[in-house]
Amino acid sequence: MTDIQQIVLAKRPEGDVTADCFRAETVALPALADGQILVAQRFLSLDPYMRPRMTELRSYTPPFELDKPLTGGSVGEVVESKNPRYAKGDIVMGMLNWATHTVHDGKGLRKIDAAGIPLSAYLGVLGMPSFTAWYGIKHICKPKAGETVFVSAATGAVGQVAGQLAKLAGAHVVGCAGDEQKCQWAVREAGYDACFNHKTERDVGAVLDKLCPQGIDADFENVGGRIFHAVFARLNNFGRVAFCGAISEYQDATPIAGPEKMFTIVQRRLTLQGFIVSDHVALMGEFVNEVGGLVASGKLKSRETVIDGLAKAPEAFMGLLKGENFGKLVVKVG
Amino acid sequence: MTDIQQIVLAKRPEGDVTADCFRAETVALPALADGQILVAQRFLSLDPYMRPRMTELRSYTPPFELDKPLTGGSVGEVVESKNPRYAKGDIVMGMLNWATHTVHDGKGLRKIDAAGIPLSAYLGVLGMPSFTAWYGIKHICKPKAGETVFVSAATGAVGQVAGQLAKLAGAHVVGCAGDEQKCQWAVREAGYDACFNHKTERDVGAVLDKLCPQGIDADFENVGGRIFHAVFARLNNFGRVAFCGAISEYQDATPIAGPEKMFTIVQRRLTLQGFIVSDHVALMGEFVNEVGGLVASGKLKSRETVIDGLAKAPEAFMGLLKGENFGKLVVKVG
Repeated sequence: MTDIQQIVLAKRPEGDVTADCFRAETVALPALADGQILVAQRFLSLDPYMRPRMTELRSYTPPFELDKPLTGGSVGEVVESKNPRYAKGDIVMGMLNWATHTVHDGKGLRKIDAAGIPLSAYLGVLGMPSFTAWYGIKHICKPKAGETVFVSAATGAVGQVAGQLAKLAGAHVVGCAGDEQKCQWAVREAGYDACFNHKTERDVGAVLDKLCPQGIDADFENVGGRIFHAVFARLNNFGRVAFCGAISEYQDATPIAGPEKMFTIVQRRLTLQGFIVSDHVALMGEFVNEVGGLVASGKLKSRETVIDGLAKAPEAFMGLLKGENFGKLVVKVG
Repeated sequence: MTDIQQIVLAKRPEGDVTADCFRAETVALPALADGQILVAQRFLSLDPYMRPRMTELRSYTPPFELDKPLTGGSVGEVVESKNPRYAKGDIVMGMLNWATHTVHDGKGLRKIDAAGIPLSAYLGVLGMPSFTAWYGIKHICKPKAGETVFVSAATGAVGQVAGQLAKLAGAHVVGCAGDEQKCQWAVREAGYDACFNHKTERDVGAVLDKLCPQGIDADFENVGGRIFHAVFARLNNFGRVAFCGAISEYQDATPIAGPEKMFTIVQRRLTLQGFIVSDHVALMGEFVNEVGGLVASGKLKSRETVIDGLAKAPEAFMGLLKGENFGKLVVKVG
């Protein structure tokens, strides 16, 4: 093995991400320096937050660099090591390139003992998206039994866990998703009390009034835009919004305004809190204990879409931004 | 004394409050029932939050009732009592009618020992507006030394205290107000580092960039609308917004949308929190200790506008909503 296949950022998108934003390259494998390891990618996670990184200048993570490989949460195997902390054969997770192999200094990678657990789970129900859901529900939404929780992108990698955790807390949980099949899965498998199709439902306010007759106490927000506006108008006193994402804004060249009547925040004593789970890595152990247990006992369902082959990552990512995936989207690289 | 002069809500405003929303009435003084007291009004507080109460159906306080007296924070003297908890001559504060006298059951009133303190101060720097400022700064904005805090309506009853408390916490404090005289007072007396005139300043973003070169860490929000939008866009990572009011929205028949790019809330991990100080009366003692001490030692300046005579309350209130008052607006009733 002497070559690396990788996908670099060829240009920054304006509006929708297009295929020419990516370029597949083959580069020669460099010799490892002392301290470096070579990781062969097994699975690459594709996540909506990558879209802002393709353009935003002021974001929580630095933007991707032009003509450099994009990066993403990944699981891979150490195939060569000049770092005493890693041995050949170690399975690691962390940020790796959109590539068949990544040369890495090992910092920020975590060794995992993957016996009996599908590796892709470390990018989903046992990984960052699930940790994100857990943090937002537990530390911001804080649902109480009998309260109503709304989750936009109800079956997405994050939303599917958020909804189930809210349900386990005893809340009435309502979500929305982009097709009937997802809505059915949300209710039948993930235990949502209701889930509506936001692509066919023209009057989001009316359907929310029907499905959330007691108003909304907490919103796990992944989408933003018109759905958020309708939810915002129906938040109850002391309502909480865990602002996790706003996928409806990522591809819009013309900015979407916030909800009308910001005074509502005062009237109803709302808290809108944005969060990024990487600020809370100190809680990772607690998350793994709690959610790992739920996964092991079968109390937490998960759904993923696996794309075969790195070359398909750009197309899959473009589809993700349009809601074409179902559940956690991962690319099987090697 | 057999008559009460009072001002009732004659009609609900649409858009700007107009004089015909009010009606002055003279009513006969009813005989007191057991448990009741008669309070002769000394000072009536006029506050922006009263505007939503004139129309809003879903607010934190029930709307004013048509053809009934409006109410407001007041200081008065008990002139007759059939309630064993109150004696003739007691000075009380609490919610009383826009009237020369209020028949009251005594619940929710607080006796004050006003020796040496101007009674109107209990409606301002020692009262609800100041308590509001203290809560928002201390529990939401939480300014640290060196941080930048922005206060809209910088010299209003609430803002003038918020700005000074932020300054005492060591922050760089910038505000805006509606005329040059207010801006000068903010800087010279209240110790703001800078204050700009939002009525003459066309490009709020540019002036904020100049006056807040390090961005904004906390916003004590009283105004909403375009000023808030500009502040929002300049909030730093982990920025806090204490949402106290949105006076720019109160008179607008066409709702004002929120700021563009709600995803900013995620990117910068912002917290926008609405609050109403009446939810936090348990902290009143702590407030009185802290802020009372600052007032007594001269560390907290205050500015008020006193209007003479109940009959002028409607006009003064209409002016308040246009920013025509300077500092805390009170009506000297008796």
